[in-house]
Amino acid sequence: MTSARPDFADASSRAALARKRAAGHTLPRSFYVDPAVHGVDVERIFSRHWIIAGHVASIPRQGDYFLYDIGYESIVVARGENDAVHALANVCRHRGSRVCVEEYGHSRQFVCPLHGWAYDVDGRLQSAPNMPEDFDLSSHGLPTARIEVVDGVIFVCLDDGGDFSPVRRDILEYLAPYDLVDARIAYHRRYLCPANWKLVAEIFLELQTTGAAFAEMRQVMARAEAAAQRDGETTRRYAEFAAAWRATARLPHERPTRRGDAPAIDYACRREPIAPNFVTQSEDGRAVAPLLGSQSESDGGVTVIRLLAGWIVACSDYAAIVRFTPIEAQVTEMDVTWLVRSSAVEGANYDAARLSWLWRANVERTLKLASDNQLGVNARRYRSGPYAPDEAALDAWVTWYLGRFV
Amino acid sequence: MTSARPDFADASSRAALARKRAAGHTLPRSFYVDPAVHGVDVERIFSRHWIIAGHVASIPRQGDYFLYDIGYESIVVARGENDAVHALANVCRHRGSRVCVEEYGHSRQFVCPLHGWAYDVDGRLQSAPNMPEDFDLSSHGLPTARIEVVDGVIFVCLDDGGDFSPVRRDILEYLAPYDLVDARIAYHRRYLCPANWKLVAEIFLELQTTGAAFAEMRQVMARAEAAAQRDGETTRRYAEFAAAWRATARLPHERPTRRGDAPAIDYACRREPIAPNFVTQSEDGRAVAPLLGSQSESDGGVTVIRLLAGWIVACSDYAAIVRFTPIEAQVTEMDVTWLVRSSAVEGANYDAARLSWLWRANVERTLKLASDNQLGVNARRYRSGPYAPDEAALDAWVTWYLGRFV
Amino acid sequence: MTSARPDFADASSRAALARKRAAGHTLPRSFYVDPAVHGVDVERIFSRHWIIAGHVASIPRQGDYFLYDIGYESIVVARGENDAVHALANVCRHRGSRVCVEEYGHSRQFVCPLHGWAYDVDGRLQSAPNMPEDFDLSSHGLPTARIEVVDGVIFVCLDDGGDFSPVRRDILEYLAPYDLVDARIAYHRRYLCPANWKLVAEIFLELQTTGAAFAEMRQVMARAEAAAQRDGETTRRYAEFAAAWRATARLPHERPTRRGDAPAIDYACRREPIAPNFVTQSEDGRAVAPLLGSQSESDGGVTVIRLLAGWIVACSDYAAIVRFTPIEAQVTEMDVTWLVRSSAVEGANYDAARLSWLWRANVERTLKLASDNQLGVNARRYRSGPYAPDEAALDAWVTWYLGRFV
Repeated sequence: MTSARPDFADASSRAALARKRAAGHTLPRSFYVDPAVHGVDVERIFSRHWIIAGHVASIPRQGDYFLYDIGYESIVVARGENDAVHALANVCRHRGSRVCVEEYGHSRQFVCPLHGWAYDVDGRLQSAPNMPEDFDLSSHGLPTARIEVVDGVIFVCLDDGGDFSPVRRDILEYLAPYDLVDARIAYHRRYLCPANWKLVAEIFLELQTTGAAFAEMRQVMARAEAAAQRDGETTRRYAEFAAAWRATARLPHERPTRRGDAPAIDYACRREPIAPNFVTQSEDGRAVAPLLGSQSESDGGVTVIRLLAGWIVACSDYAAIVRFTPIEAQVTEMDVTWLVRSSAVEGANYDAARLSWLWRANVERTLKLASDNQLGVNARRYRSGPYAPDEAALDAWVTWYLGRFV
Repeated sequence: MTSARPDFADASSRAALARKRAAGHTLPRSFYVDPAVHGVDVERIFSRHWIIAGHVASIPRQGDYFLYDIGYESIVVARGENDAVHALANVCRHRGSRVCVEEYGHSRQFVCPLHGWAYDVDGRLQSAPNMPEDFDLSSHGLPTARIEVVDGVIFVCLDDGGDFSPVRRDILEYLAPYDLVDARIAYHRRYLCPANWKLVAEIFLELQTTGAAFAEMRQVMARAEAAAQRDGETTRRYAEFAAAWRATARLPHERPTRRGDAPAIDYACRREPIAPNFVTQSEDGRAVAPLLGSQSESDGGVTVIRLLAGWIVACSDYAAIVRFTPIEAQVTEMDVTWLVRSSAVEGANYDAARLSWLWRANVERTLKLASDNQLGVNARRYRSGPYAPDEAALDAWVTWYLGRFV
Repeated sequence: MTSARPDFADASSRAALARKRAAGHTLPRSFYVDPAVHGVDVERIFSRHWIIAGHVASIPRQGDYFLYDIGYESIVVARGENDAVHALANVCRHRGSRVCVEEYGHSRQFVCPLHGWAYDVDGRLQSAPNMPEDFDLSSHGLPTARIEVVDGVIFVCLDDGGDFSPVRRDILEYLAPYDLVDARIAYHRRYLCPANWKLVAEIFLELQTTGAAFAEMRQVMARAEAAAQRDGETTRRYAEFAAAWRATARLPHERPTRRGDAPAIDYACRREPIAPNFVTQSEDGRAVAPLLGSQSESDGGVTVIRLLAGWIVACSDYAAIVRFTPIEAQVTEMDVTWLVRSSAVEGANYDAARLSWLWRANVERTLKLASDNQLGVNARRYRSGPYAPDEAALDAWVTWYLGRFV
């Protein structure tokens, strides 16, 4: 009798794997290594939950679109009629070809390259050249996914997704002052990281707690430097600084992380001060672009919103959207988009290199750290280790993930 | 209890997969994506059926050979003694090394690089240096495969293959006027297409029906342009043109596709007119090489023979052999060889670029279309779609394939 | 009902596979092709047996280290306090990152890049910055492996490994005259060979028996040339030459291969003459470096020690350590280090190209032969073939391997 590798298609094999995780410890090896777990992650996590897809500034005109690929899945995010934004499955209903083959594009219709089946920018099938007279066009549109746009940020869900309105309300409260609807793309970078998406996300989550491994973050964020120093005096001084900032900051402060159960939406919103005299997250603390939205001056804080493995970071003068997406068990796409006020002119009002300095560094350091982490975890001698007290947020995130994995 | 991925080694699991295909629809996703299905395709389709391997003009002298690799299988097609052509397994009977390591070559013997076991050009073991005196050379020759040569075109079968004579008779009738025995290689191209071989073959099959996605084919073939236009007047004019051509064409016209059951040989022969005033399939319709064989002038038609996933196209002045071979589940080799009359001299009598224009374009477009098709099919949101009425030939081919897959 | 691919996690499936091997024949295809067999090889062969890791001359100072990766496993071989040499698992006990990310390096401590957990050069955890006060550092050191150093050559075992002292005694007897403790690295090469490690090892094993496929070996070794000629006269002359050499050689001659059962240690030591008038294994037979150790002149012989898939070759003036390591089912790392007397100066006393000529050639020929062997074995038409009488050592090695595989 032979044993066989489970593919985790049934709930009991998933539950058995999940039970192997000891409370307060990192995940067992399979979660970071096994292609079958990757399949479950794409199917049960990324295809059933809300995820951040991008920003409407990438698709300003009707017929503009971009592709968002998750593993083998491909979504067309398109600007349709009457300014609507749609999420469409990039699979022709005839023979299954991609209908959009460019990563970014503009098109009056989405025409399948194989036989010219033509879908309008809202995904409705308009013509199917060689089909019989009585062929029902209306039942062969591109499959659609749920989509929500909050202050220009695009959220999609490939499944039911439940009631998004409380999430929308929370996120909008945090983003409204920056008015990202009136933003333009300032810069964009994409990386492939040779590590499982959960290793990438765990390391990036720490930027909100300690971040001691991130030199640039310590230079910019008083909180990260205090966490790295770990002496009583530094900690006390940081607490005073943060309290003083909270007393005067004009924007909302911190909302407890929400992880709804029905439907499960894993998100968090928070604000915190940068460093003394820093008006934005820049190398020298000085502004790098015109103020966003209705602000008359910086209040010295930064807004951070996370939803699953996507982040929105907003400073007084720029915002960044960071999106981590599983491609293979050990390959994660890292996509970063920087936004500035739509009236800003490159060269005159901002410099892309200065603007992108911190979050490029953070993402590139995450890439290297996660790669080395993956190499270690791959070893059979890897054992789940204990989370430190200041890694409580990671512990909670991993626990939430397991609840959705099974 | 865990479930497990089937490997389709048993008939019942293959039958269960085949039953998932709805009549008249494209194949389910696994057929294009799953490495285990690829294994079955190599084992049950390509290793049990006749396939087109190439042309004798590639191996003019005794001891000339070329390798034909199908997935991990490797066949040595060699010119043996007395002008015989052999298909030999490229695996030494001692420790399993390849005995031929170059793709094309010439050799008096095939000598294993490991210990010098030497096989003659007919595959017989002639010496095995370190074996005992009583070692039986005669029972350790290279495994052979069946081989048939029809007008210079080489067909091989790695299994029994049954009676090839009716196929030979049909194909010879169509090829005889071109006398490809008296041909030389004019040009050769090889591509790797990142798509399953069945997606490649399905798209290429359409060149014989609509071909609307192939600009060069529409330019050259009146039938393709009529299929693309789809208006009554164009269709009527094409019907008149084709009827007039059939009334005068000197060569055989069309033989119903044969898909024998015992043994199963999937092939088809047909002739059709090119476009008005085109004497060959060239960009401007004018001749690109000396007339082939015994023809005194072009009759304005083209001959197309298909066997499994190989094509022979013959015009008045050149022929092309197109061979699609599965390498991995999502990788297909595309090999194209162009032939001209043996007395033709490059530069003086033909120009390889002009000669190869149409079928290079057709193959390269197929490569791109199949790649995009694969990317779409990879998505879990792919659903089998309905074949159009003018895709009836594909529907029949897929149905035949399934009958052999189980 | 579906069948499924076994993963060989249970003993009965391994035994069933092992039983498919016919006595006196090469291994069945799966052993060279299947990723699941590769997993077993890493787990049961390379992680449970003593293997040659390298030489202390690579890590002369305290804090020097090199990584030895086997499949996904990574071992830090480090020079610790008081000149001790350690084998440490390269996996942080916190979140599983690699603690050493460079292949070769020098470090006062091994500090995890993620959160700064710091291990001393003996692998003891010295600080874990963010853990609670009562966190037990002493129970979170890097996992260690057994390590033995014999005349500077480093042996490691990731499992219990049993009593190494008889092996040490044998090997030391053979190596002592060369005094490799007083050696320095003269040259180093690393290759990736696209073949299973067992195909690589089998081909390399033959260098000690026939070696007819190795032109340089035949040029240097009288025994190899005689084996290739295979005529009675040559064989007789070689026997006389070898007998005369044995009568005068000052070093130990040949120890029967040992393959202990509890624990299983697969090793062999032997000496043999080079060619008439050759003082070392060089292209012209002349010395290529100062004499090693206490020798006053060459005795015209070479010492060869093998342990699993590692070799130590020692001539009068240089030594080479050859190490084959499985990386994937069809990828093997080939690592070669050349040693000379520590006082030798490159340019003045030796030339790396001359010195490395024979074993570079042997390794590079092995790479090519094994690659072609793998391509042949991959074919379904591969059948296990009979070993020749002069391949008895391979037959025995394969039989030993199977006994440890199950």
